[in-house]
Amino acid sequence: MASAATNFSLSLRNKQQTPIPKSSFFSFPNNNNHFRFNSNNCPSLSVSTARNSRMCATSSRLTDPSTTKSQPTLPTTVQVDLGNRSYPIYIGSGLLNEPHYLQRHVHGKRVLVVTNKTVAPLYLDKVVDALTRGNPNVSVESVILPDGEQYKDMDTLMKVFDKAIESRFDRRCTFVALGGGVIGDMCGFAAAAFLRGVNFIQIPTTVMAQVDSSVGGKTGINHRLGKNLIGAFYQPQCVLIDTDTLNTLPDRELASGLAEVIKYGLIRDAEFFEWQEKNMPALLARDPSALAYAIKRSCENKAEVVSLDEKESGLRATLNLGHTFGHAIETGVGYGQWLHGEAVAAGTVMAVDMSYRLGWIDESLVKRVGDILKHAKLPTAPPEIMTVDMFKSVMAVDKKVADGLLRLILLKGPIGNCVFTGDYDRKALDDTLRAFCKS
Amino acid sequence: MASAATNFSLSLRNKQQTPIPKSSFFSFPNNNNHFRFNSNNCPSLSVSTARNSRMCATSSRLTDPSTTKSQPTLPTTVQVDLGNRSYPIYIGSGLLNEPHYLQRHVHGKRVLVVTNKTVAPLYLDKVVDALTRGNPNVSVESVILPDGEQYKDMDTLMKVFDKAIESRFDRRCTFVALGGGVIGDMCGFAAAAFLRGVNFIQIPTTVMAQVDSSVGGKTGINHRLGKNLIGAFYQPQCVLIDTDTLNTLPDRELASGLAEVIKYGLIRDAEFFEWQEKNMPALLARDPSALAYAIKRSCENKAEVVSLDEKESGLRATLNLGHTFGHAIETGVGYGQWLHGEAVAAGTVMAVDMSYRLGWIDESLVKRVGDILKHAKLPTAPPEIMTVDMFKSVMAVDKKVADGLLRLILLKGPIGNCVFTGDYDRKALDDTLRAFCKS
Repeated sequence: MASAATNFSLSLRNKQQTPIPKSSFFSFPNNNNHFRFNSNNCPSLSVSTARNSRMCATSSRLTDPSTTKSQPTLPTTVQVDLGNRSYPIYIGSGLLNEPHYLQRHVHGKRVLVVTNKTVAPLYLDKVVDALTRGNPNVSVESVILPDGEQYKDMDTLMKVFDKAIESRFDRRCTFVALGGGVIGDMCGFAAAAFLRGVNFIQIPTTVMAQVDSSVGGKTGINHRLGKNLIGAFYQPQCVLIDTDTLNTLPDRELASGLAEVIKYGLIRDAEFFEWQEKNMPALLARDPSALAYAIKRSCENKAEVVSLDEKESGLRATLNLGHTFGHAIETGVGYGQWLHGEAVAAGTVMAVDMSYRLGWIDESLVKRVGDILKHAKLPTAPPEIMTVDMFKSVMAVDKKVADGLLRLILLKGPIGNCVFTGDYDRKALDDTLRAFCKS
Repeated sequence: MASAATNFSLSLRNKQQTPIPKSSFFSFPNNNNHFRFNSNNCPSLSVSTARNSRMCATSSRLTDPSTTKSQPTLPTTVQVDLGNRSYPIYIGSGLLNEPHYLQRHVHGKRVLVVTNKTVAPLYLDKVVDALTRGNPNVSVESVILPDGEQYKDMDTLMKVFDKAIESRFDRRCTFVALGGGVIGDMCGFAAAAFLRGVNFIQIPTTVMAQVDSSVGGKTGINHRLGKNLIGAFYQPQCVLIDTDTLNTLPDRELASGLAEVIKYGLIRDAEFFEWQEKNMPALLARDPSALAYAIKRSCENKAEVVSLDEKESGLRATLNLGHTFGHAIETGVGYGQWLHGEAVAAGTVMAVDMSYRLGWIDESLVKRVGDILKHAKLPTAPPEIMTVDMFKSVMAVDKKVADGLLRLILLKGPIGNCVFTGDYDRKALDDTLRAFCKS
């Protein structure tokens, strides 16, 4: 672990010599269903908006290079800047052994940990210890939900309310989400709605949750007709990412999370994408420094986007590259059959295929996307069960439909550039669907 | 109606000569569980805060005294000032015949009217006409829920989501609540959670909803263990109060709403309470000008409190005078058995009794409260089924419990003054419960 921490420091120091481009441009062409996003500093294309000049997500390295091995490693902190709802993301090895990171963000004397049957045996005791060690005034209850996307529904959510109400929790309490994206989304929505809003903390234990779903305040549950259709924008007090929790993550879950890591590179961070192309073997081998770097850089990208567009009026939608196709797959095959990242990977291939059909990207980018997803052991096509009609039926209730028009995130230009638009040739969408479906 | 409008204008003009006291003081004594509120301008007690000097709710009379009878009467508008979430409350006779009040607040092309089996036959066609007349681009769907507090639950709420999703509504839609408090609370929560938030409009059709529940953004549903335990703070685009809808309101519902009107007088508006004492016969006889004045003045009080304390960190809790006891009655006897205002009336008598036991108010006030509630044909004691244990059990999960301590709204001082406090002699609460329960 000490070696990993050293590698991590080194990679961060190297990184600091080539900082991530922080400015993005955000233009409104004549067609207001069309937004263009770019991670490069490209003056000829840049449209001035107040948002451009704002630095919205900030990272701080707390690690002192002189730290000896016997001292705990200080975490990297990525700040999500949202005014009075700002919060830190702590990223590091062994953070669950350091109670003060959690305890400083607990409000009131009562804590409800929401977790699932897979994660509870692994980490619940550790989290309860971190919440209560040296802190006898705090009492902790827990609710253990079944594991899987198919349980991200209202019936399961009610179990969280039941537990909180039966335990006589009041407004001065804290909900803690311990698990992957499903747990984080459900616990967050429960916290948003319980007594019209109580504090909550995210402790994501999967790559998927650590790089994406735990950050940014999107919470909610699925409806039988579509994913995440019921929910709230509700920000946590903090996100605590103990990278050691990834040691128990199944390979398939690891790969699923990498789909979102790859997404950040494609939509806004070309340099990160290139780093991933080189470091995919290290990520799959769970090299701690590679994983920690990928998580940190993903969180920085996510935090910056969320800070600029919390309620998804435009820019934030770009984080959904591949998700409209992916949600259709998840809904079509039945929640829980494909992991979210697996569906996103196949959906990304479809979005890239469509972008190419529209003439918006080079063939070389199509190949690179296919290659990196294959290297990450992710699917590059939807399951055979999916038909054109199944895609269209689910895509019609996507949250990005506006006044009946489906807007999609598509790549346009060199790697790292994308658009969120409803202004595309319908034939390209039809052709893509037909190319990937047998009927 | 013309005569009523004239009376209304007169009473408003009279009113303007003796304006409602706009300042309230808000002090934090040593015990921070104790807030004191007062409607009088009392320099010796006033504690300076930034909030004191802010005028937060503003009313405008749009009625031109020279208006001829053939022209429609312009509504009174009470503004709820909440920054970029501010909105108007339109109050007037015949407003549902004037499409522009509604149409200016509709976002997108799709509208979902949420109503119930009682209200739909009376007003749904009228509302659909108001939404669509001269506005062919807008299409309206409706969902008709069963009527009653016992249906304010998650299963019924899901019918709203089902309808919106099956109808392929997207984020650019508007939900319209047409009905009483239950419909408003459920439709508001559905709007808050559908696709993480869509626009909504309140069209309250009961006195209860017009004077209280439609204003201020509290939305939610009940849990079998307690009222309004799951919900959101979510503000509408506007509240449209057509006082003509009260013509079809049953007497019992009318009286129920008056319990909240009386509350405003007791907690912060002594002059309004005195007006009610004199005008209760006119209110019960549905004198349009008396009802319109009571609704306007109630909305002004509510809007001012909500503007000062949207999320109920202190002041807003005072609107719950009698509600902690009242919620226990509603939960204890079973949702829908007692109307909300009936339970609040009995709860108010209990809160007043407790205030008197604590030595905080004069006996004369106890009598005046009992008298006005009796004149309003409201209950002044809980039903015989209620036991001390039933009260305690429900009150333990009240949202105003903080770290295990139940805070109550109690009267203290001359009429129009109250406190929100957990700092009271427990014996007074026990004595009150025993005095009103057989066991």
